[in-house]
Amino acid sequence: MSEIDILVSEVGPRDGLQSLSTVLPTATKLDWIRAQAAAGCREIEVGSFVPPKLLPQMADTAEVVAAALKIPDLTVAVLVPNLRGAENALATGAHKISIPFSVSETHSLKNVRRSHEQMFEEVARIAERVREVEPDRRPHFEAGLSTAFGCTLEGPVSEDLVVQSAERLMEAGVAEVGLSDTTGYANPGQVRRLIRKVRAAVGDEHVTGVHLHNTRGLGLANALAAIDEGITTIDSSLGGIGGCPFAPGASGNIVTEDLVFMLEAMGLRTGIDVEKLLEVRSILRQALPDEPLYGFVPDAGTPKGFNTDLNTAA
Amino acid sequence: MSEIDILVSEVGPRDGLQSLSTVLPTATKLDWIRAQAAAGCREIEVGSFVPPKLLPQMADTAEVVAAALKIPDLTVAVLVPNLRGAENALATGAHKISIPFSVSETHSLKNVRRSHEQMFEEVARIAERVREVEPDRRPHFEAGLSTAFGCTLEGPVSEDLVVQSAERLMEAGVAEVGLSDTTGYANPGQVRRLIRKVRAAVGDEHVTGVHLHNTRGLGLANALAAIDEGITTIDSSLGGIGGCPFAPGASGNIVTEDLVFMLEAMGLRTGIDVEKLLEVRSILRQALPDEPLYGFVPDAGTPKGFNTDLNTAA
Repeated sequence: MSEIDILVSEVGPRDGLQSLSTVLPTATKLDWIRAQAAAGCREIEVGSFVPPKLLPQMADTAEVVAAALKIPDLTVAVLVPNLRGAENALATGAHKISIPFSVSETHSLKNVRRSHEQMFEEVARIAERVREVEPDRRPHFEAGLSTAFGCTLEGPVSEDLVVQSAERLMEAGVAEVGLSDTTGYANPGQVRRLIRKVRAAVGDEHVTGVHLHNTRGLGLANALAAIDEGITTIDSSLGGIGGCPFAPGASGNIVTEDLVFMLEAMGLRTGIDVEKLLEVRSILRQALPDEPLYGFVPDAGTPKGFNTDLNTAA
Repeated sequence: MSEIDILVSEVGPRDGLQSLSTVLPTATKLDWIRAQAAAGCREIEVGSFVPPKLLPQMADTAEVVAAALKIPDLTVAVLVPNLRGAENALATGAHKISIPFSVSETHSLKNVRRSHEQMFEEVARIAERVREVEPDRRPHFEAGLSTAFGCTLEGPVSEDLVVQSAERLMEAGVAEVGLSDTTGYANPGQVRRLIRKVRAAVGDEHVTGVHLHNTRGLGLANALAAIDEGITTIDSSLGGIGGCPFAPGASGNIVTEDLVFMLEAMGLRTGIDVEKLLEVRSILRQALPDEPLYGFVPDAGTPKGFNTDLNTAA
């Protein structure tokens, strides 16, 4: 595999599909995941281990993980809300397990019905199980700091609380914390400031990724701000599908197509072929004929002479 | 008037309206211009002095300028394609006169039927007329470097040619040059690099503004990159209407509503009240019922608790 500068982590099969009413067949999910991996995508969050009653869209996650693990050079990531989900995830051998932690306690109580203290305890229990896995099979366990940039229920979220939450989660045993703009409230100044503060508290190597939304059109500007601060993993979703179903009005992940175009145009290598990526969209279009798909590059196409030396000259 | 950090220059009444087939009545244009000035907008490009046969949408520009000049604290800007247009503009007393110069000569020949050398001569003739105006009534005369980031006809545009064009235009007598992403090809790395190069060649004080498009969704990321480099004037258009009618597929100005939200959220003062600005949109909606209006903030609204100390804390 060639070197990359920025890891674009596709979260559509999880964050995208969980917010839609349509339940995508397992075979279609795998068509999508395989096509996107073939376009050069190195990491895909393929599902979430939540009770099927709550999110029937994710009921086949174990099966999807098993098939995705056979795709070469792909990091298979999953989301878990609690210990039970983590145990299911560990059983599948997924490479990466993420747990969302809502810095807004109101959002936490509403989303997973747990207080902050209960969440720290749950994370510590999961971390213990993760440590029991043999080192060569042990997944990367990280926590996402949801609502880090503001909450639709509480409004502004204290930056000190974000930093303290990051510290407590690291103490509880996660390998890394990510910053999530669950609500699409972030602005580039805030992104820069918060990354600096959290990195200063827990170490640069423990804050390498951000999950940003495009709710107010600032997704790519915020991604640029994050990259300027040294962030190397950016979550996004094909066609921009998805968002948090429990944060009203907070839809709209960053569009993978536009993000990859921006990075590649800047000369930052993602490993992803933009033209091939644009073709993957047709799988989604066919599977979800009634869902809006977002993105500007899919409509406008790449510029004439894209990726020539002139565009990316240093 | 209060101090501002970034001047958001509204180009909708010119760049927006000239690309639509609908001809807006003069009274409606003035309703829009007055409402947007009342929302705090300090500069509006109200029209363009082009032959009415070519662009009937702009036929009332002299009348619009005359009325706009009566609005307090508003810089009234106009576009001119040539000496004839500049003479008309000078007769109205507009505060600011811009002439587009296509760095892509193919685009120049197609757009204004003039070669680069012919354009330099034309600019010199206009500069002479501008200098004849008494100092206290003399407008600010600037040239916009169109297709500076690439051309739909030529593809990549040489950065050296952009720098040389800027130098020649300054020699010809403009007070300032701006960088225009006419085609929506720019990426943030290129924006930073080109601003640095052109500023190094002609002086920071002679490159203060950029005109960016959102064709590929990178408009706000590019604006952020420009601001990082010290740019203080950003063009945008309400509802994102417009683009260049002679650059196929190159529609989509930066949306004023989203730009102002981003800047204000970052604590950069624009003088514009976001909520009042969002209300101006209804004038456009009513006047142009069949035209698509763009923007994310108009749909999502401002975040809960927007503009509190927490969001903009340094």
